[in-house]
This record gives sequence, structure tokens and C-alpha cells, in this order.
Amino acid sequence: MSLLVTGSIGLDTLETPFGKRENVIGGSAIYFSYAASFFTPVRLVGAVGEDAPQMIYDALKGRPVDISGLETRKGSKTFRWHGSYVKDLNEAQTVQVDLNILAEHAPKIPAAFRDSQYVFLANTHPLLQQEMLASLSGVQLVVADTMNLWITNEQAELRKLLGKIHGLVLNDGEARMLTGKKNLIEAAQDVLKMGPQFVVIKKGEHGSMLCSGGDTFVLPAYPAKQVIDPTGAGDSFAGGMMGYLASQNSLHMSVLRRAMAYGTVVASYTISDFSLAGLQNTSREKIDQRYTEFKSAMSF
Amino acid sequence: MSLLVTGSIGLDTLETPFGKRENVIGGSAIYFSYAASFFTPVRLVGAVGEDAPQMIYDALKGRPVDISGLETRKGSKTFRWHGSYVKDLNEAQTVQVDLNILAEHAPKIPAAFRDSQYVFLANTHPLLQQEMLASLSGVQLVVADTMNLWITNEQAELRKLLGKIHGLVLNDGEARMLTGKKNLIEAAQDVLKMGPQFVVIKKGEHGSMLCSGGDTFVLPAYPAKQVIDPTGAGDSFAGGMMGYLASQNSLHMSVLRRAMAYGTVVASYTISDFSLAGLQNTSREKIDQRYTEFKSAMSF
Repeated sequence: MSLLVTGSIGLDTLETPFGKRENVIGGSAIYFSYAASFFTPVRLVGAVGEDAPQMIYDALKGRPVDISGLETRKGSKTFRWHGSYVKDLNEAQTVQVDLNILAEHAPKIPAAFRDSQYVFLANTHPLLQQEMLASLSGVQLVVADTMNLWITNEQAELRKLLGKIHGLVLNDGEARMLTGKKNLIEAAQDVLKMGPQFVVIKKGEHGSMLCSGGDTFVLPAYPAKQVIDPTGAGDSFAGGMMGYLASQNSLHMSVLRRAMAYGTVVASYTISDFSLAGLQNTSREKIDQRYTEFKSAMSF
Repeated sequence: MSLLVTGSIGLDTLETPFGKRENVIGGSAIYFSYAASFFTPVRLVGAVGEDAPQMIYDALKGRPVDISGLETRKGSKTFRWHGSYVKDLNEAQTVQVDLNILAEHAPKIPAAFRDSQYVFLANTHPLLQQEMLASLSGVQLVVADTMNLWITNEQAELRKLLGKIHGLVLNDGEARMLTGKKNLIEAAQDVLKMGPQFVVIKKGEHGSMLCSGGDTFVLPAYPAKQVIDPTGAGDSFAGGMMGYLASQNSLHMSVLRRAMAYGTVVASYTISDFSLAGLQNTSREKIDQRYTEFKSAMSF
């Protein structure tokens, strides 16, 4: 099944206890695409400014990712984020953020992408997420991500979006913020009342949880011996999950559970090095092997 | 196999977002014994003051718990703890603690208990833990708990204890404090270098982890819809784990993994109500049923 992702593409400056990297590749759509591309071809939609360095265009070279939806917008500047995990590897402190092109209108979805069947709307303004969704036809599964900013400032638009998607992926703090419920099971059930058929709550180093109807699935994180840079973990998780789902062409709960396990494993490579280096140093074969190890590490 | 527990017995005053209970039954040995008694007979060793109300002696009535090691010490006062979870259900704030009898010498282990094969030394001064252990013969498995106080103030004695036990159970914050390692896998490996053959790290609402040699087992928490009072969760987890282990008479890693899953399930009953009420309202049959549900909630 064809998999489309819309999201950010940018340049990150990252500080962790293991060092600093300046102006490296980042952005939700980049991490998502790389992660998903281990499982299925990906169509990427996003926009960069005319200042974008060549390495952005080369980041997904050799991967089955169609970047014909990557728009270079004249007169605009590329999104930049500077984050630090020096105090706490589990929580990014934003040192500086230059939204630049992300504060403008949504990128256009190429005509050739409009028949995409699996769609992931990475985190951006919920109005833009709805606009992009509206330009698609034949969609079988739409999953979206969101963040605290939209929950606080654009909840009306976010609620509209929730009525139009099948699945929502968000982190534990965001789920609590959106619902006002501290207990994550209660929070998940409240999210389901807002529209989606399933909700995936990401808990960082503590794993993830899936709720859908009466079904609850709990998954620990992969027991990583070393975390170098957690940037992109959530987007890689979503990429691995959606990539696997699209490759299976089934929305059965058992497939969704396996998809989350694959997402967890792919994210474990992302956090093992800075920027895309962890993903660049793995393969589908290694991912399958770690998937088996992971399954065995939690079996009883 | 005979299972012995040494630990605290006291009166708790508890405040949670769901209400307040004054002078209810508490203490590590009480929660542990109740939890373990679903799986195997338990021998309890602990001490209370002459002010102890009858309900302490009655708390384990009808359960297969031998309380002949429950000493009533003249001139001493019972341990009391007043904790609040009003701010955060995941972290107790101590409002007041009166160690009373816990600050005195260790309770005596009755002659009839000295042949105990499975032993759990609940959290107390590591010197007392060693003293109690020294009075036993024929021990097959000794597991101990500890806390930040001893890690900070009595690390030399704690290190001695670690050289004499098979397993250590502690929470994530304590594991990080004891080893200086933030990553829990690294922390666990450092604990193993201190002596124990296995270490179980409890992560509260995020589950638990077992490390032994090259084996790592990760387990999410039971997805509880409502947490009323988390007091005793860790001791109930340890009780369920040790109770199941003693009932199986095997220390194979696969049995230890199942034991942790049983511990998780038993603790999920503890937190569903104040004090012992959650445990009083369950049964081995209900526990087995929830164990199956739990296994299915994390299978993929």
C-alpha cells in the first residue's frame, strides 16, 4: 500500500551528554520516512527554504522514498531547531526554535501522491493537517501526531481533525493535557471519544500503549544499553509502525500490535547515534533480528 | 518451599486524591505476606510496640501466614507513617514518620523459622538484614529490598549485604543512586557486579525489569484503569514474585519471569483500594485470570 507522510524537514543543533552536533538533518518527516522505508516505499511531502543545503535532498538517497513532494520555497527559510538533552536525556530543552517555513502555508501534495492509501500527518498546525488531508482521495488509514502547542492554542481545530482520522499518536504528557486525565488508560479512552478508532500513547523510555475499543496493548521500550541522542525517536517509532502497517495491508489489531513493536525497534536504532546515523547503520535484517530479541526480552 | 519475610509492620495514615485513611494497617512485611500468601504459606517476622491495636494481629487472619514471629515488644511503640499522594499518585510525600520500634534492634527469628529456604529481607538497616540472615541455615534463595536512606548513609554495610544475597529488588531511583548510572541497563549491570545473581528494578507505573548475567527481561505495569492508593505496591510485587517462586521450587529464569508477572498482577490489586482492601477483595482465581489478561495485553 502507498504510504504518504507530511511533516517537517529541517536542520537541528543537538546537545546531549555525548556531544554536540550543529546543523544536522532533522525534522519529523525525515525521521519518519527513513524509518518507514525499511518496510515500504514512502512518499514524502514537506517544504524547505531556498537556504536548504544539498545534504537535505541527499538524506534519503538510496532509500525507497519519493521526495518529489519536497518543495523548495523561494523567499522562505528552512526550519531550524536547537535542543539540549544535557540535563535530562528523556526530555528535550528547546534552546532555540526558528519555525521559518513551518509558520507559512502547508506544502502542496503532488497530484501523483493524491491516491495514497496510508497517510501519516506528522505534527503541525491542525488546520494544515486538515487541509492536506482534504486534498487526498482513496485514503484507507490516516494517523496523525500532535503536540502541546496545538492542544493549548488550537484545540477547536484539533478536535475537528480528530473527527477525521483513524488513529492518533501522541506522548503521555500530551494525552494528559488533551483530556485532563492523569491515568493514561482513562486519557486514552477519552481520546477515543473524540473520534479516532485507536490511540497510541508514547511514553519515551517507558514504552508505549495502544487503546482501541476494549483492547489495550502495553509495550515496554527496547532495553537500550546506551542512548546517545533521543531526537526523532517518536517519529521513527511512527515511521516503523506505519511502514509495517502499509507493508501488511491489514488493520487487524494483531498487525497493529506487531507494527508498534517494529516501531519500537526502529526507534531504538535512532537513539543509538546522532541525527540519522543510527538509522543509516541498520538494515531490515538487523531490525528483524532485534525484533525477535525484543519479543524474547518480554516473553514469560 | 518455606518462605520467610522480615520487614516492617505499622500503622499508616494515607492521603490520596481519593480520600484519607487514618491509622490503617501498613508495613512492608504485611503487604508482602498478604501478597505471597496467594501462592504459598508464609512465615512473618517483625515487631510492633505494646500500643499495637488488635487489628494488626488480625490483619492476616484466615491467610496461610504464620505470625508466630510477630514480636510485641514491651516499652516500644509501633512504627507509624503518614504519606500523601495528593500531588502525585506516583510519588509518596512523607508527611510524618515515626520509626519507633524500627529504630531499635532486629526482631528475633523463631527457632522454628530458621530452616526457611526462601527468604525476603524487606527494607531495613542493612546491618539488621545481615544479622537476620546470619541466624538462618539452609537458605536456598535470599532476596533483599533496600532504600535511598541506606544507599546514602550505610553503603558499606549495604555492600556487605549485597555479597550475601542472590537477588536485589529496588526501584529505579535507588538503582541510579546506588550505581551513579542513569541508564537502567547499565545500572543493573553495575548492581550485578556488587554480588547479586539477579536484580529486579521496579519502575512503578512503568513496570519492572530483571537483569541476570546476559539476560534482560522487561515488563510493563498492568494497565490499571484506576489507582486509588499506591502504598504497598512494591512490597506486594515482591510478595507475589517470591510467593510464586517458592511455590514452584525452581530458580530457572523462565520461572523468575513468570514470578515477576504474578507480582505485577498482585500489586495491581493492592493499588486498587486503600491499605489491604484491594488484596482482601481478590483471590488466586481472580489473580490467575488477570495474569492471563495481562499476558494477552502485552503479546504481539
